[in-house]
Amino acid sequence: MRVSQTNLAGDLLLDLAQPGTGPLHERVKRSLRSAIRKGRIEVGTALPPSRQLAADLGCSRWAVTEAYGQLAAEGYLEARSGSATRVRWSNAPDTGSVRPTAHEAPAARFDLAPGLPDLRAFPRRRWADAVRAQATQAAFTELGYPPPGGHLRLRRLLAEYLGRSRGVLANPQDVTVCTSVTDGVRRFCQALRANGITAVGCEEPGWTRLRGVIRAAGLEPVPVRTDDGGLRTGDLAGHAGLRAVLTAPAHQFPLGAVLVPERRAALLDWARRVDGVVLEDDYDAEFRYDRRPVAAMQGMDPSRVVLFKSLSKTLSPALGIGWLVAPPRWTDQLHQMDQAATQPSTLDQLAFAALLESGAYDRHLRSCRQRYRNRRDTLVRALAHELPGTPVSGAAAGLHLILRLPPTTDTEAVVSAAATRSLRTADLAAYHATTVHTDHGLVLGYGNLADSAVNEAVGHLRGAIEEGR
Amino acid sequence: MRVSQTNLAGDLLLDLAQPGTGPLHERVKRSLRSAIRKGRIEVGTALPPSRQLAADLGCSRWAVTEAYGQLAAEGYLEARSGSATRVRWSNAPDTGSVRPTAHEAPAARFDLAPGLPDLRAFPRRRWADAVRAQATQAAFTELGYPPPGGHLRLRRLLAEYLGRSRGVLANPQDVTVCTSVTDGVRRFCQALRANGITAVGCEEPGWTRLRGVIRAAGLEPVPVRTDDGGLRTGDLAGHAGLRAVLTAPAHQFPLGAVLVPERRAALLDWARRVDGVVLEDDYDAEFRYDRRPVAAMQGMDPSRVVLFKSLSKTLSPALGIGWLVAPPRWTDQLHQMDQAATQPSTLDQLAFAALLESGAYDRHLRSCRQRYRNRRDTLVRALAHELPGTPVSGAAAGLHLILRLPPTTDTEAVVSAAATRSLRTADLAAYHATTVHTDHGLVLGYGNLADSAVNEAVGHLRGAIEEGR
Repeated sequence: MRVSQTNLAGDLLLDLAQPGTGPLHERVKRSLRSAIRKGRIEVGTALPPSRQLAADLGCSRWAVTEAYGQLAAEGYLEARSGSATRVRWSNAPDTGSVRPTAHEAPAARFDLAPGLPDLRAFPRRRWADAVRAQATQAAFTELGYPPPGGHLRLRRLLAEYLGRSRGVLANPQDVTVCTSVTDGVRRFCQALRANGITAVGCEEPGWTRLRGVIRAAGLEPVPVRTDDGGLRTGDLAGHAGLRAVLTAPAHQFPLGAVLVPERRAALLDWARRVDGVVLEDDYDAEFRYDRRPVAAMQGMDPSRVVLFKSLSKTLSPALGIGWLVAPPRWTDQLHQMDQAATQPSTLDQLAFAALLESGAYDRHLRSCRQRYRNRRDTLVRALAHELPGTPVSGAAAGLHLILRLPPTTDTEAVVSAAATRSLRTADLAAYHATTVHTDHGLVLGYGNLADSAVNEAVGHLRGAIEEGR
Repeated sequence: MRVSQTNLAGDLLLDLAQPGTGPLHERVKRSLRSAIRKGRIEVGTALPPSRQLAADLGCSRWAVTEAYGQLAAEGYLEARSGSATRVRWSNAPDTGSVRPTAHEAPAARFDLAPGLPDLRAFPRRRWADAVRAQATQAAFTELGYPPPGGHLRLRRLLAEYLGRSRGVLANPQDVTVCTSVTDGVRRFCQALRANGITAVGCEEPGWTRLRGVIRAAGLEPVPVRTDDGGLRTGDLAGHAGLRAVLTAPAHQFPLGAVLVPERRAALLDWARRVDGVVLEDDYDAEFRYDRRPVAAMQGMDPSRVVLFKSLSKTLSPALGIGWLVAPPRWTDQLHQMDQAATQPSTLDQLAFAALLESGAYDRHLRSCRQRYRNRRDTLVRALAHELPGTPVSGAAAGLHLILRLPPTTDTEAVVSAAATRSLRTADLAAYHATTVHTDHGLVLGYGNLADSAVNEAVGHLRGAIEEGR
C-alpha cells in the first residue's frame, strides 16, 4: 500500500509505536528509510516540511531534520534549498525475494565417509591455551598484516618439523602458510599459469576437489591412471607438453597405494626431462601403521617438487591451516602474486607454532597413529567377519581403505541405502574423472568413526550392500 | 668429498658420533640419506652388505636392514634380490642454494602509513576468552569442514549487524565469510569472469592492492577518476562495455571523499542500465566523526551491489576475517566456485560471532571511534601548527587524511626522508594507476600512531617535508 504525503505521519507513527531501540531521530530515520525501501512512498513524492512532520509525530523538529539530512546523504531523499524534500530512490524489482534458509545437513550417526580425522579427539583445551598464550604474548606489531608467506616463526618450525618427520629439505622462507592443501594448490596453479603451464596431470582416480581447483584456476586437469603401485609414471610420456603433475605418493587417494620406488625415481626423471614440476600432496602421510612412513619426494629433489600439507587430517579442517614448500623461484612468484592475503590468523599460526615447538603436535600425532591403527584393525576384522569374501585394499595407512565390491553391485545404490541407515560412505566411482574403469567399490573413511560404533556401522553397511546387489 | 664403499662406514661413524636423537637405526638411516643427498656417495655405488656395515658400525644387522629398506622405499636406494643394494638417487643441481634469511623490516617508531587500526588497542584477553569459550563449547561436528559460505551462526549475526549499523539488506545465506576484503574481491572476480565480465572500473586514485587482485584474477582494472565528491559516475558512460565498478562510497581511499547523493543514485542507475554490478568496499565505514555514517549503498539495491568488509580496520588484519554480501544468484556461484576453502578458522568465526552477539564488538567500535576522533583532532591541530598553510583534506572519517603539498615538493623524497627519521608515511602519487594527475601530497594514516607520539611525529614530518622542498 502506497502512502501519500498526508498519511505519511500516520504510517510512521504506526512504525514508531513498534518496540525499537535507539534515540527518536534514529527511529524516525529507520522508519522513513524502511517506508521508502518497501516502495510505500512513491519516487518524487514531496515529504512534509520538517516542522509539520515533527508536530504530527510529537517529536522535535531537530529529530526530523536529522533524519531527512541523513537519508539525503544516503541518496534516498533529494533536498534542494527552497524546495520540498522529495523521495529520490526506487527499489530494484527483485529485492524482496527471500530464499528459504539453507538447513545444514544433519550429521550421520555413522561417519564412514573419507576426509575427516577424529573430530572428537581435537585437543580443545590445548588449542585454547595456545591461542591465549599467543594472544597475550604477541608483540603489538605482530597484529598487523603478516608477511606474504606467513609468520616466520611458524615457517621456521615447519621447516624443522618437515625435515625431521618427512625428510623435507627446506629453508624457512621456502615454506608458505596458506589455509589448506586446496588453497595451496590453487595458489600454485596461478603461478603455473603465469609461467605458461596450461595443464596439470592428475591421478585417475583422484581427489575430485583438487581437479575442481585446477580447473577453476584456468588449467586443464589431465587424468593419469593409477594402480596398486601408485601413479603410472610410464603413461606420462604419452602426454606431450605436460609439465606439471599432482600426486600423493605417500598414500594415493582414493586407492591407497604407496608410489613404488622405481616410479618415484621415474617421476623425478620425467620432471627434469620436461623442465617440469611435481605437486606432492602429502595430506595424511603421518599415518602409516605397518612401517615407518616413506619420506616425502620433496627431499629427493627440492628443485622439482612442491609439497602440500595441512592440519585438516591431523587436527581439524575447521582450523583452516595449511602450508606448502616450493623451490625459491616459485616461492618468490607465489608471494608476489599473493595480493589477496588468504592466510590463517597470525594468532592461530603462532598457536600452532607453539604446539610444534613444545612437542605437543608430535605427541598428538603419536596418539592419533595408535588410535587409527587400532580402529583400522577393528574395521578390517569386522569387515572380514560380516562381509567375508569382500576384499579390502589400500596400504595400512591414512584414514581410509577401499572395500572392493563385485561389478554386479550398484555402488551408487549402496551409498543411498547406507544414507537411509544414517551411515555416510563414498562410491569409489565418484573419484573417477572418466567413466571407463573397472574400479568397483566403496571408500571407507574411519578417521571420524567412533571406536564403539565400528561393529554396528559394519552391520549397517552389510545391509546396504545387500540392498545394492 | 665423495666416499667409496670402503670408507662409507667411517663416514657414517663420524656422522653417528654427532649428538643426535632417536634410536640407532633411525640415525643410521638419517646419516645415510644425508650422505646420498649431499652427493657424497655416487649413483650406482654398491653399499656394503648389511652384515658388514653393521659390524663396522657396531650396531645390530637389523638396524642396517631397516635403514636400507626404508631408503629403498623412499627411492634413494635400489635393492634387488641376489644383488648388492645400490645408490639410485642423484641430487638435482640447484638444491644446495640457500638464500639469505629474509629479515622482517624493523617497525618504524612513528607509524603514519595508512592501512592499520590501533594494534595496541586489540582486545587480547577478550579475543582469547571468546576463542576458549568456542573451543570448549563447539559441537564436535563443527570441527569438520565448514559450509562454503562460513558458519551459519556468524552469517546470521553479520546480517543482523550489517542491517542495524550499515543499513544492509541481507539474508544470512547471502553473507559469505572470507579472509579479507582482498580475498572477497578475488573470489568475486572469479565469478565475474565466469560470467563473461572482463573489466572492473576502479577508483583513480585508489587502493593499489585491489587493482592487483583484479589483474591477478584475469580481469582488467579500468581507472575511473575520483574527486571531492567521490567516484565521477558521469565518466562511466565513456567506458563502453564496462559492467562492474569497485568503489568505496562511504570513504574513498585515498582521497577521503564521501560519494555525494546524486552520484550514489547515478551509480545505481548505471548498474541497472548496463545490467552490471557495483562492488562496494566498505572497509572503514564504521568510523565517521562529524556525523552518523552514511548507510551502505547495498541497502539501496541489494540486487546490484556487493558489499565487502573485514575486521582489518576495526580489530586487526592479523585475524584474517572478512565477509561479503552478494545477491543470491552471485552467492550461489561463489559457493560453487569455492573449491579452495579459503575461510578463517571456524573457532575464530564463532569467537567473532560471540563478540557480535554480546555487544562487545559494538562497544569496541564505540571506544575506537572516540579514540580515533580525538587522535585525528590532535593530528590536524599539530599539522596546522607545524605546517601552517599546508591544507588537509578528506572527510572526518576513517583512519587517514590527505596532506596536500605544493607541486614543487618532491613527495617521494619526503617519504624517504621520513623513513630515515623512523617515520612511515605514503606518497599520494603511489595510489595512482596513471601518471597524469595533479594530486600532490601525502596519505597520513593515524590508526596505528600512538596518541603520545602525534606531536613528535608531526615535528619529524615537517623536517622531512622541508628536505623535500
